[in-house]
Parts: sequence; structure tokens; C-alpha cells
Amino acid sequence: MTQHPILIDGAWRAADAASFFQAENPATEEIIPGEYPVSRWSDVAAALAAASRDAPLLANMPPEKIAAFLERFAERIEVRAEELSATAHAETALPVSPRLAAVELPRTTNQLRLAARAARDGSWRRATIDSAANIRSCLAALGPVAVFGPNNFPFAFGSISGGDFAAAIAAGNPVIAKANSSHPATTRLFAEEAHLAAQETEMPPATVQLIYRTAHQDGERLVADPRIGATGYTGSRRAGLALKAAADRKGKPIYLELSSVNPLVLLPGVLRERGADLAEEFGGSCLMGVGQFCTSPGIVLMLSSREADAFITGVAEKLNAAPVGTLLSAAVQASLEKSVVALRDSGAELLVGGAVGGGGAGRSYANTLLRVDGGRFLIAPAAFQEEAFGNAALIVVADDADQLAAIIDHLEGNLTGCIYSAADGADDALYNQLAPRLRTRVGRLLNDKMPTGVAVSIAMNHGGPFPATGHPGFTAVGIPAAMHRFAALHCYDNVRGHRLPDCLQDKNPNGVMQRCIDGSWSTADAPSA
Amino acid sequence: MTQHPILIDGAWRAADAASFFQAENPATEEIIPGEYPVSRWSDVAAALAAASRDAPLLANMPPEKIAAFLERFAERIEVRAEELSATAHAETALPVSPRLAAVELPRTTNQLRLAARAARDGSWRRATIDSAANIRSCLAALGPVAVFGPNNFPFAFGSISGGDFAAAIAAGNPVIAKANSSHPATTRLFAEEAHLAAQETEMPPATVQLIYRTAHQDGERLVADPRIGATGYTGSRRAGLALKAAADRKGKPIYLELSSVNPLVLLPGVLRERGADLAEEFGGSCLMGVGQFCTSPGIVLMLSSREADAFITGVAEKLNAAPVGTLLSAAVQASLEKSVVALRDSGAELLVGGAVGGGGAGRSYANTLLRVDGGRFLIAPAAFQEEAFGNAALIVVADDADQLAAIIDHLEGNLTGCIYSAADGADDALYNQLAPRLRTRVGRLLNDKMPTGVAVSIAMNHGGPFPATGHPGFTAVGIPAAMHRFAALHCYDNVRGHRLPDCLQDKNPNGVMQRCIDGSWSTADAPSA
Repeated sequence: MTQHPILIDGAWRAADAASFFQAENPATEEIIPGEYPVSRWSDVAAALAAASRDAPLLANMPPEKIAAFLERFAERIEVRAEELSATAHAETALPVSPRLAAVELPRTTNQLRLAARAARDGSWRRATIDSAANIRSCLAALGPVAVFGPNNFPFAFGSISGGDFAAAIAAGNPVIAKANSSHPATTRLFAEEAHLAAQETEMPPATVQLIYRTAHQDGERLVADPRIGATGYTGSRRAGLALKAAADRKGKPIYLELSSVNPLVLLPGVLRERGADLAEEFGGSCLMGVGQFCTSPGIVLMLSSREADAFITGVAEKLNAAPVGTLLSAAVQASLEKSVVALRDSGAELLVGGAVGGGGAGRSYANTLLRVDGGRFLIAPAAFQEEAFGNAALIVVADDADQLAAIIDHLEGNLTGCIYSAADGADDALYNQLAPRLRTRVGRLLNDKMPTGVAVSIAMNHGGPFPATGHPGFTAVGIPAAMHRFAALHCYDNVRGHRLPDCLQDKNPNGVMQRCIDGSWSTADAPSA
Repeated sequence: MTQHPILIDGAWRAADAASFFQAENPATEEIIPGEYPVSRWSDVAAALAAASRDAPLLANMPPEKIAAFLERFAERIEVRAEELSATAHAETALPVSPRLAAVELPRTTNQLRLAARAARDGSWRRATIDSAANIRSCLAALGPVAVFGPNNFPFAFGSISGGDFAAAIAAGNPVIAKANSSHPATTRLFAEEAHLAAQETEMPPATVQLIYRTAHQDGERLVADPRIGATGYTGSRRAGLALKAAADRKGKPIYLELSSVNPLVLLPGVLRERGADLAEEFGGSCLMGVGQFCTSPGIVLMLSSREADAFITGVAEKLNAAPVGTLLSAAVQASLEKSVVALRDSGAELLVGGAVGGGGAGRSYANTLLRVDGGRFLIAPAAFQEEAFGNAALIVVADDADQLAAIIDHLEGNLTGCIYSAADGADDALYNQLAPRLRTRVGRLLNDKMPTGVAVSIAMNHGGPFPATGHPGFTAVGIPAAMHRFAALHCYDNVRGHRLPDCLQDKNPNGVMQRCIDGSWSTADAPSA
């Protein structure tokens, strides 16, 4: 059986493997051929040595070259689209169409092209010039970035294809990608194309490197290594917090995107206006991707009422009637079962589902709906916020507005929070009471819209307060905003003009870069000192 | 003897004191009358409760009100300037004139007024509007900010008067100030004026609160408390890293400004051109504030040459001839002695000074110059980078350019790094070899200028890679840049127009706020959705 090599310093080579692992097809529960190495530290060390050697080249490279690489990579992905979708489907059970082929793949190439455009444009650097004092500053590459991708978006958040990858490269940093163990073949295909694109566009050999898996302690050593610039991690809270602790001890920036239950607040007026539609809409959002979105709405908050009961009945019917999808992996299935059991043990009532299988193919779990009263929620708010990652949701029914407010005050940090309110203004007073509280708990506040769509927008925040992420000031989605995570602030004080980086020269280097000159943003030249 | 109260929730009240401490006049070594409490946790808890109650009020307050408070505070400081300078002089031995009265006090009120202007202007929010998608985001207050001020700038970095304070308040956060134990009376005066200014401008009672000292474990508990938004700390590496570890464990942002040796590289050509002048200039910079600046140049790197020897002789003469200043405290004196002994134990040669006292009044230490060869430096690079906080500097003489480059590669993260090079271009090749290396080690790169001046500029970076600070993307000086530390990214997705914060409305709220609309910065209105 093929033992796959790793990509180090511009070449595929046999790993220094402690062992090997294989992926499973979650729909068939069959092992997929091909063995992937669990690397010993020497592989990581080789990647670090090469990346730190090439980091200065990338940091000072003409933006056009970086952009050309990203665009060539996007083209290559499109050429291999069919194989990528088929491979990812086999490893994750995500549907080829429309999900992988028509939604996630175009999103991925779009992100790469937006990152290319951002690199070329240069506005991401936030170049700032104080012409009177001759002090100038800009964001700049900070060194090799380790990227740990999640299981749920094998393309758009993939460690060698997704948003963190695109942002880190566009900011001028080499990437050391660590594959997600649930889809190694998909990651391998992306790495092959990234490698070839890098060769074609004459990038330094360590621009993109790939390791499949390491022991946990070696992952922790990687993110804390003196040569690392920063880390982007998307995945489980437990593994993420272990990496964060290791990175924090050495003062290395690490950006986490961990669990989030994405509270949805449905006010009484809107339930009266269109409760049945909302049950349909909510059911659709919470089953999207079999509930395996970072922004899947896992908790619904409502006031007790006849309309609330009708909404719950409507959702229950929808979940009962909907086909049961296959989960990403056996691990997701096991964790979902564990979470549902824990919610029930804490006192949530099972309304629908709650069983392994549930009629879905392979690794599946019945579409599940639970309910708890607000009073009981407040007895153990942390327990009821355990993320049930998958096709399950918890409805919390509060006695009154004050209890609803108290529940919101006990929410942990989340990526999103949403409030639906009546069109006729009947909910406005309650909205005004609750929204400021929810605002402090979430990165993105929505109105009248499910949170599952995460637009790649300059104004997006796919981030939020801990423990949804590790820092409330940064976003993982949105170009150029996501690039700011992988940059250091570089100030130049009295540095001779010809020695300044292009973006801080008096003359705007490309005529389109937005710079802050003496307090005003523009594309103008700076006044000569 | 007076036992001083603490400022909690808008009132001066007796502390729940575990014990009391007193300040010392470092020039006379006499205890200054007045006892200051070491608070038990209950005081901190009271401050946290009040601050978290008032945080939403401040976060959503009209900017004009916050600006009015900051400006009124600045005026009150000016009225009490004489007493402030006299009090700080007694507690720190810093000269009243020009240092305290004519330099640091105006800098402090200037910072407060710049912060007021930034609050009013609103550009600090980086409001970003994607009009097509109706997604909008901005930076916003994140909750109570704990500020731990340093010993060396009792006004401009003071916990209830300095840059962190001004930035946190201007961004709409209440401040819980923890005084530096070396100048409690100075801090008390500022707190009195801040309190009165807050009353006069009708700010919420917990806008400014003051605790003098707590047990270390209670400080760690404070920065990790669920109610805290973020922490600003300036001080020693040991205490700062303990606070960072506590905050990191709970995912609370903490911004540190720790030690820095601020390497200065003098290239051969400039030493030939004006070595004698440089000796004078360097001596002045390294004795400024008795060497107790965060940006004091503690390490000089040179190539071995006759001119280097002449420079060293010149500096030695300058340090020998200069009066010996009084240090900030007995603790600074003891730590300086310890550092100099450690440098000598590691193999540095003592050229000048190296003794407690040295002819200065009170807590003083002889102006000290040490020297080590590059080869020996590279044997124990960490040992030679121990900050000797005070009037001491280490000169490192490298054998050749490659060794000089290797030394730079072994530097830890620093706030600043400076290269002096010849005007005639003779050093340009060497500059080009060394500057990119030094660039990655420092927050602010200077040319031909000593680092001891830290201009309050929009382009300043008073920050840098760990362990100089805790995150390389933020600055502690410069308005509005320093405010970004005390803010969270808030996104609004499909939120109804009248519910948006002013800064994200279609109409520019004040006509001067710089906003990024569909990718371009301007003061224009956004197109209606």
C-alpha cells in the first residue's frame, strides 16, 4: 500500500514516520487506501528550518509575484476540481453537488484570488505616514505561519487551500500546513497543486510545506518554536487550547477558531408574524452541512408562549421529516452522541432524534432537537452550552424577559448571535433590552437572518470573544482583514527614504494603495519631507 | 499617620487592607509620610463589579462626553501641575525641571487631548461598510481595562494618567488602575483630579477607579476575571509574564511592555565620519532619565576598529565625567547592581563604574560601561541581553561583518533598533546586509537617531516582538493606534439601519470620521442599501 510522502522544502519526500494512519469513508465506513505518515519531530524541524530560511525572501518579495502564485494555484485547483470534489466526498461524505463542486470550491478559489488582489493592492499593510516627524509604519510579514485546518470545510478552510493559508501567504509568510486527519487525500491534492504552482511562479521552495500529522507534543512544540511567526488553528476547543497554552508561553501569536453555539433569539412578535416560516428556515440552517458549520445555530432562545410551542412543533416536524445526513467522521458521530447525552443528563428534554444512526448512511446520527426551560438553563449555563457539533439543536424557553436577559448574560463568547424581531416594531423594546447584552457575547450580530452564511467580505467578522476565538480583535474570514493576523507592526523612524519599503515611500507605489497620511486615508503621494 | 483610601465606584473609601506600604524618597532615602493600602481581593471585586456595571454605559456613550471628560482632566492636571511635579520628584527623584514639569507633564496632557480628539473624530473605530452585502463592522469598547503603570514615567505612563489610561477611556472602557508602588502619592493626585473631572462631566461613577497594590495572586485573578475586557501592563518582565500567563489561560487580551535593550549598531563609516560626536550623543541618550527609559540604548554593536576603540574611549570619558543621577528606587538600584554583576560574571569587561553609589545622591549607581567581544557574546547571547535598567550600557565588538550579523540574529525582541551609517554611502552594503535582520527583531527601526525619544505620532510603534511586548501587532504609544488594543471587532450583518451604531450608519455621523466603504477610505456617506 502507498505510503505517502510529505512536502518539505520544495520536494516530496518520505516522512520520518513514527506510524501511519488511514482515512475512512464515513458513508461506507470503509478504510480508504493509502497510508499517511505521523511525522516525528525531525520532519517538523526540517520544515521550520526551510521556512525560516525562505521567510525573508517572501517578506520582501514584489507583491506581483505572490499574487501570481495565488492566482496560478487557483487555476490549478479549477483544473483538478472534479478529482478534488470526488476525493473530498469520499473522505467527508459532503455532497459533491452543490456543496463541494459548486459552493465550496468556487469560494476557495475566490478567496485565493481576493488574497492575490489584496497582496497586489497593498492596502492591507495600513501604511501610515507622519510626514512632519518622518515616522512611518506598516504591517509586514512576521515569519512562518503554521496552519491547522478543520474537518468541516476541506477546501475553504483547508490548511493548504483555505482562508488562513491564503491570508498568510498574501501577507508574505511561508506556510507550514498540518493536514486534518479526516481528509488527508484531499489535502494532498491541494498540496500537489500548490507545489506545482509555486514552482511555475518561481516561489522560494519552502513557501508551502505539508505535514499530515504529528504527536500532540510536537504540534505544541511547533507553535512555540522561536522560528515560527504565528499560528492559525480551526478545530476543537480541547486541542486548540492546548496549542494556545504552548504558544502563549513563548509569546507567539496564535489565532483560534474554536467552538461556537451561535445563539438565535426569536422574539414574540416575529413568531406571531411568521413562526411557521421561521421553523422552516431554522430547520434548514441547523441541518445545513449536517449541522457541521462553525456558525450552525445550536441554541435558540425564546419566551414561553403558544407561538413558541408552535415553532418548536414545526421544527420537530421538519427535523423528523428531513433525511439524515452522513457526518464527517466516526469521531464527529461519537462526539455528537456524547454531547446529546450530556445535555440530557443536565436536564434537557429530548424532543426528536437522540440516537446513533437515525436512518442515515454510515457515520450518522438522528436529526436531534432538545428543549430546556430557562430556569434550568441558568442552574448550569456552561453545561447547556457544550457544542453538539452536528445535526442537533437546543431550544431554551424562558419564563420572561428578565430571565431571557439573564440567559444572554450567561452566554460564553460566540462567533455569531442573531435576533429575529417583528417587522411591525412590536418587538423593538425587547430588542433594545437584549441586543446590547448579546452584542458583547458575539463577533457578528445578525438581524432576521440565519448565521450559516459567512460572506467573504471586507466587513466580515468570523471571530468573537473567547472561547470562540483567542482574541476578539481579529477575523478569520474576509480579505484583507484576515491578513492582519499574520502581520507585525513595523515602524521606521528617520529612516533614509531610499531604504524604506515601497509602501512607505513618499510616492504611492501603485496608485491604488490606501494609506493614512497625516491622519487621512487616500491613494495620494505623501508630501516630501 | 494618614492611611489613604482607594477610589471605588465614584467614591474614596477605606480599603479592605491586608497591610500598608509607604514610599521612599530615593534621593534622601527617607520614608515619605502617608500609608497606602495593600488591598484584599474584596476591593478588587468591588472595582470589577462597578466597572462591569458601567461598561455598557461608557461603550455606548456619545463620543463628545468622553472627550469632554478627557479634556477636563487635562485642564485639572495643569492646574495642579506644580504639586504633581513636586510630589513625583519626591517619590522618583526625577528632576522637576525640565523633565517632569516641562516635558512629561505636557506630554501627558497632550496625550489626553489627542485621545479626546480621537474619541470625537471616531476614525479609530476603523468603520468598514460593505454596502452591497449590508455587512458592517467597527472596533468597539471591550469592557473594563486594568492598567498597571511602570515606575519610570509617573505621568505619561501612569496607570491613571498615561497612554494606556487615555487609550482605554477614549475607546469607551472603564479603567481599573493599579498604582505603581514607587509613586503612590503621585498616582493619588491624578486619581483625585480624574475623579473630580469625571464628576464634573457626569461620567458613570466607575469610569476611573484606583487600587494601590494587591497580592500578586490577586493581580493575576484580576487580569483573568470574566468581567475584565483587557489589561495594559508596563513593567518588569517577571511580573508581566506572570500576569500574561494568568490572562492567557482565560483568553483575556493583555498588552505588555516589558524589557528592551534597544540595540544600536554603529557602522564603520559613520564612526570614521563623526565618531566623537556619536560618543557624545550616545552618552547623552544612555544617561537620559538615568538610563531608565524603556527605549534606553543598552547595547551597542560595532565592528572592531581603531575608530571603535576611540568611540569607546569617548563614551567612557563622557560617562566618567557626567554627574551620577539618582535612580527611581532602592529596587532599581539593587536590580542594576545585580545585572551588572551578572554581565561581568558572563565575561563582560567593566570599563567604567560598576559600583553602588558612584557619587550620586541617595539610591544611585555609578555610570557604567561594559564591553564584550562578539565571540564571547555568541557563547551566551541571552545572558548578555539581560536588561541593566539604569545608567549602564554594554558595548559588543564584533570581529567581522558575519559575526555582527550573527549577533543580530541572536537578539531577542526589542522595542527599537537603530543603525547609524555614513552619509557618504560607505556603509550602504553593510547596512543592506544587517538592516533586514535587525528589522525582524524590533518594533521601531531608526536611522542616525537615538531611540530615547518616543514621539506621540499616528505612525509610532512603541511595541515589538516578544519578549519586548506580548503581541507584535500593537503599539502602546500613538493615538489612535494605541486605542486598538482596547477594542473588539464588532460586525453587524443585515442589522436594521436604525439599530446600527452611529459610526456604521450610511450617513457619516460627523463628517470627519475616516471609514472604509466598499474598499476605499473616505469621510463620505455610504450608498444607501
